[in-house]
Amino acid sequence: MPAKDHIFKRFDEELTELAGQIAEMGGMAEKMVADSILALVRMDTVLAQKIIGSDGRVDRLEKEVEEKAVLMIAQRQPMANDLREIMAAMKISADLERVGDLAKNISKRVIAINSPFAAKKLVIGVEHLSEIALDQLKNVLDAYSARDAAGAAAVRQRDDEIDALYTSLFRELLTYMMEDPRNITFCTHLLFVAKNIERIGDHATNIAETVQYLVTGEQPTDNRPKSDMSSLTNVEFKGDK
Amino acid sequence: MPAKDHIFKRFDEELTELAGQIAEMGGMAEKMVADSILALVRMDTVLAQKIIGSDGRVDRLEKEVEEKAVLMIAQRQPMANDLREIMAAMKISADLERVGDLAKNISKRVIAINSPFAAKKLVIGVEHLSEIALDQLKNVLDAYSARDAAGAAAVRQRDDEIDALYTSLFRELLTYMMEDPRNITFCTHLLFVAKNIERIGDHATNIAETVQYLVTGEQPTDNRPKSDMSSLTNVEFKGDK
Repeated sequence: MPAKDHIFKRFDEELTELAGQIAEMGGMAEKMVADSILALVRMDTVLAQKIIGSDGRVDRLEKEVEEKAVLMIAQRQPMANDLREIMAAMKISADLERVGDLAKNISKRVIAINSPFAAKKLVIGVEHLSEIALDQLKNVLDAYSARDAAGAAAVRQRDDEIDALYTSLFRELLTYMMEDPRNITFCTHLLFVAKNIERIGDHATNIAETVQYLVTGEQPTDNRPKSDMSSLTNVEFKGDK
Repeated sequence: MPAKDHIFKRFDEELTELAGQIAEMGGMAEKMVADSILALVRMDTVLAQKIIGSDGRVDRLEKEVEEKAVLMIAQRQPMANDLREIMAAMKISADLERVGDLAKNISKRVIAINSPFAAKKLVIGVEHLSEIALDQLKNVLDAYSARDAAGAAAVRQRDDEIDALYTSLFRELLTYMMEDPRNITFCTHLLFVAKNIERIGDHATNIAETVQYLVTGEQPTDNRPKSDMSSLTNVEFKGDK
């Protein structure tokens, strides 16, 4: 085949490899999140340790994606669509790296809690929150693979649900702490776990925006719904007197 | 002058513009952080509202930097050093956008707390933490302007201090909550404020790594010191019985 076609073919292969690395990172990040919640629900500190140990692989993959992306831009000098592909891969890998970090942080808190005292009811709330976040993560990675702008838009819309649930969980945890000071340490860790899950939802939303940009060539400009009111939450203390 | 020199000159101007936008974003982010802590210390909800309103400008600047960067890569097809300049600008602007978000979040919590009941002693701890974080932010922006790899390395080393201080503050806040349940809502917000400041320190560290990469052409590989042990903290409840 002509030399030019050969160069194009090699470039396409590199793009496919890059997308493959994103898919691999996505799978790893999803698993880390799912496992960290499992570790929390079962108070499984061995699993938690395993997750903490696996975060390095996600970090290394991000660095690899970034290095490969910069090299591709420098060597191939891609235009328009191809450049967008590469930029999108870099952005998505940065979000996935943060998702891995958040799962690692949840795992560290499981080790800190390490007590069967965990109130089942509250953990269920956190578990439910994580199910939606994982769903969002899965859907947005599917949208990336399929270059599906509508799928990505749906993920952005649904972030609202996570935020609203997080706010109500925040309120519930505060109330629980006030009822019995012995719950404070445990509930504080759960508060941060819930916050981490809410942040994982935010990263799914970021990725959704990147997918929309990748497919349409434009940054979405409509404002995303916002229902995380937890930072505005003030639960009045009703005990004692 | 010859057409080629003209193109180079224009490209250099664009690079200078890009660095100027980063400096502008940096200044805005620094001010937002300083103001958010001032709002907390003074319980000034009007200032807090103002900060929340100003975050949009930082977000817009980030999008501008990104669009300009992608355009420069596509049109100018820069190599090596110049490409690194552009990539670094994109990464730093993403970190600064997050710093702005974190300052906004602190401001929201000031509005949520909105009570003179705030324990001075605890707020002082948060204030001290923020001074170091602001120092780090200032130093790393200086290191970026001066292309100073040693300055950036010093910022990375000092993140340790923020982490250690945050961990001790976390512990202190938990103890305070246990002493009197009426402190719970206030202290929970302070916990998240402290966490936000610790995250601002992390972003300063990220920027430091980007500056090192920009100047040396290599990602720093040595492991940064890590002293945030708060997620491993378990303060035992000693009250009641």
